[in-house]
Amino acid sequence: MNVKDLVKDDKYLDLDDANHPANLICELCKLFYDKDWVTGTGGGISIRDENDKNLVYIAPSGIQKEKLQPWEMFVVQLSDEKVLRTPNETDSQLTKNYKYKPSACTPLFLSCYKFRDAGACIHTHSQNAVMCTLLWEDKVEFTINNIEQIKAIPKLKLNESTGKVEKIGSLENFETLVIPIIDNVPHEEDLTPTLDEAIKNYPGATAVLVRRHGIYVWGETIWKAKVYNEAIDYLLELAVKMKLHGIPTIKE
Amino acid sequence: MNVKDLVKDDKYLDLDDANHPANLICELCKLFYDKDWVTGTGGGISIRDENDKNLVYIAPSGIQKEKLQPWEMFVVQLSDEKVLRTPNETDSQLTKNYKYKPSACTPLFLSCYKFRDAGACIHTHSQNAVMCTLLWEDKVEFTINNIEQIKAIPKLKLNESTGKVEKIGSLENFETLVIPIIDNVPHEEDLTPTLDEAIKNYPGATAVLVRRHGIYVWGETIWKAKVYNEAIDYLLELAVKMKLHGIPTIKE
Amino acid sequence: MNVKDLVKDDKYLDLDDANHPANLICELCKLFYDKDWVTGTGGGISIRDENDKNLVYIAPSGIQKEKLQPWEMFVVQLSDEKVLRTPNETDSQLTKNYKYKPSACTPLFLSCYKFRDAGACIHTHSQNAVMCTLLWEDKVEFTINNIEQIKAIPKLKLNESTGKVEKIGSLENFETLVIPIIDNVPHEEDLTPTLDEAIKNYPGATAVLVRRHGIYVWGETIWKAKVYNEAIDYLLELAVKMKLHGIPTIKE
Amino acid sequence: MNVKDLVKDDKYLDLDDANHPANLICELCKLFYDKDWVTGTGGGISIRDENDKNLVYIAPSGIQKEKLQPWEMFVVQLSDEKVLRTPNETDSQLTKNYKYKPSACTPLFLSCYKFRDAGACIHTHSQNAVMCTLLWEDKVEFTINNIEQIKAIPKLKLNESTGKVEKIGSLENFETLVIPIIDNVPHEEDLTPTLDEAIKNYPGATAVLVRRHGIYVWGETIWKAKVYNEAIDYLLELAVKMKLHGIPTIKE
Repeated sequence: MNVKDLVKDDKYLDLDDANHPANLICELCKLFYDKDWVTGTGGGISIRDENDKNLVYIAPSGIQKEKLQPWEMFVVQLSDEKVLRTPNETDSQLTKNYKYKPSACTPLFLSCYKFRDAGACIHTHSQNAVMCTLLWEDKVEFTINNIEQIKAIPKLKLNESTGKVEKIGSLENFETLVIPIIDNVPHEEDLTPTLDEAIKNYPGATAVLVRRHGIYVWGETIWKAKVYNEAIDYLLELAVKMKLHGIPTIKE
Repeated sequence: MNVKDLVKDDKYLDLDDANHPANLICELCKLFYDKDWVTGTGGGISIRDENDKNLVYIAPSGIQKEKLQPWEMFVVQLSDEKVLRTPNETDSQLTKNYKYKPSACTPLFLSCYKFRDAGACIHTHSQNAVMCTLLWEDKVEFTINNIEQIKAIPKLKLNESTGKVEKIGSLENFETLVIPIIDNVPHEEDLTPTLDEAIKNYPGATAVLVRRHGIYVWGETIWKAKVYNEAIDYLLELAVKMKLHGIPTIKE
Repeated sequence: MNVKDLVKDDKYLDLDDANHPANLICELCKLFYDKDWVTGTGGGISIRDENDKNLVYIAPSGIQKEKLQPWEMFVVQLSDEKVLRTPNETDSQLTKNYKYKPSACTPLFLSCYKFRDAGACIHTHSQNAVMCTLLWEDKVEFTINNIEQIKAIPKLKLNESTGKVEKIGSLENFETLVIPIIDNVPHEEDLTPTLDEAIKNYPGATAVLVRRHGIYVWGETIWKAKVYNEAIDYLLELAVKMKLHGIPTIKE
Repeated sequence: MNVKDLVKDDKYLDLDDANHPANLICELCKLFYDKDWVTGTGGGISIRDENDKNLVYIAPSGIQKEKLQPWEMFVVQLSDEKVLRTPNETDSQLTKNYKYKPSACTPLFLSCYKFRDAGACIHTHSQNAVMCTLLWEDKVEFTINNIEQIKAIPKLKLNESTGKVEKIGSLENFETLVIPIIDNVPHEEDLTPTLDEAIKNYPGATAVLVRRHGIYVWGETIWKAKVYNEAIDYLLELAVKMKLHGIPTIKE
């Protein structure tokens, strides 16, 4: 079985290009598994095609993320949410007739693309994220300031004239990072209205925490989204430690 | 010494097939060692042959799990518990005349196959598992609810007409995951009656915690068992952190 | 695209020599990323050329440290701080016209070279470092004694006649390691005067902690700096644990 | 430079045999570095030659353990402590004229060989070990019982007629593991008399903790020593967590 031969006519794949969205999703899912962010099939990644911004690649649901293969991706057309490619049409030598479903996060990923013009969106079940939503149980925002790593987070502003959120730089280390926390619901797709509302109400946010669940982080490109996700997780991990030692995360 | 030549007549081995049970046990023991679940020769894995469900592969006792080789496996016939293959018959160039014993967990693994028709069974000494049995010292059940990762755990139900436990879906995130805790005994094989009782009394369970010892997790296939084990360990790790911060694991 | 061909005329690079400063910076940034010291583009490394001590290699600002490539380095002439090489002049097939900036730590690295004749300087956002600056919030020094690992830290002394700080051996395990803590500022380059002052006031120090930010560690060579950084981080990690358990870090 | 050619006449090396003591020390130092047991040049390993029990291989002092190479080993003759091989005689293309010193642990390693007929001895600066000596600050013994992993520790008994300590099996999980704790001293070699005393006073021990320093673990072979070290570190790690949660390590 020659894998390349089996997918050579698939216009949504290019196994030889390490920067192809389908390949990058696999590379990063493996990295995130090693960081314990997507164990037990949790979490997911979606990347928008840089050459055709109407196409988004989405990892399938319920698959071991560290074992993901490029031909297991869904491709959705952003304009009408039409599924252009499903892994179920891939040669069965590669998929063993497994019945794939798109990630339950799909509508949430699409919100990030539509309302923020994101280039990629990352969803993890990071324990630091879950712990912060528990430690901020009665709050609708996680906040932290005066930590250097805050500088890695983008400073975003709503452009009133265009109605679009624009990146105007990075946060300063003394500024307060605010991440909205929305409550979890039984079915992931039902998070969409509250996520949409949080995205709208927090034009400065590049992430949303989901209580007792995890976090969504997006960015202009997959590499920006990865860096934002790393920097935010660093801050969430630090916040959990600060709480344990009785140190407030906000310094006046 | 050509390893493949030395085992080429062994019908229970196939070094070239990555999905062969003997090879998968080695791959996963290495992964579990890196996660600190089977250090110091602790823990073990057993996999049932998908093509002949009467055959189960079992890792040997007392061997460094991360260094396990396919030819070190025992193969047991499920119907009569007859040992069909022992590593002691392998060419001594490979085994150096080491005297292998089957895992002390063997009777426990066999219980999972018999009473639950499992496809694989994982046993680890995970510190998260041990800590939860200590933090729930006076309880016979570990319980947690309202965490997203619970969705990765199967929903099981006793079919009264067949007397068999069947998978009817997955737990909802708001449902309560219940894992029975049984007390440890001096000799691992003597855990069998209490494990059997827990398996019988908890038809909804896909795992049993052993106090001051570790955990047994089983599933329909080795990959399902791996995913359940990862998701459960994630929840046990989170539970230990929640306890430390004074957060209850059950939310009414 | 043949990478070696594209940089073969660059006199500041030698892809074949593993010990070349540009290559070592990449190797160590990958290692430090795996240790969670430079995630989210945080931190940086600078190495002085052993063969021409007037040249220092500096990682660029804002790049994912684990993905750094040798041709992305800046080279600065120590005597006049003139930039001799910028990655912006590298073939655009390698850099994709990304506009590089030298690390914001550059003036701080240069201070270590000038005032201490360092051979290399490491800057990380280690959470152990940040936590110690928070746990020692009202102190201007972090101190610990009577731990064996302290022996890995150099014993330094100001030579009054030459005005230079000289290494006279290693600390004893019963001696007190003192690391000055300076307060963070909005712009990293503005740390220079306080860092310079700390370097001057603490001739015995081979590191400076920056509150709510991280740590700077330097040494005679990159390998010495790496060992000092590891030993100090070990002590900072231990100190956080000691604090949590109510154990003082100073034993009279 | 062909490495094999440069050491081909060295009768104490065999780069092709993965199980050669000099090669095993390198392999395990790398593993232990990844486990944070020997960072910052801390710790060390010594292995006795199985074919000539009068020869012991010892890692050098002050070298980054994860970068150790086979030709950097010292070889000592046990009967008279004569140094048979020093890395200082290795071709300078490999050692760059670095002046090697044998590990400061050498006399301690030799004690384990002489008084316990050990096959290998491991010394680490494990933070779990150091923390337990701090949490048991006013005690001369660390004790834990009723944990399954205790079964990996050997049961040793003094044979009164021969005066030798013999392995008579393994500890039961309900038995109490006792590890003596000796106080640290300024110079590692000065630990010898107290280590010797602890070895003599605790015939059941296969390890000695050194307060505010680390641990020494030995075994019949390097693999046994490795397994004992892993199992003990697992128990020390668990003990630190139990202390934090207020759970006693001894259950009556």
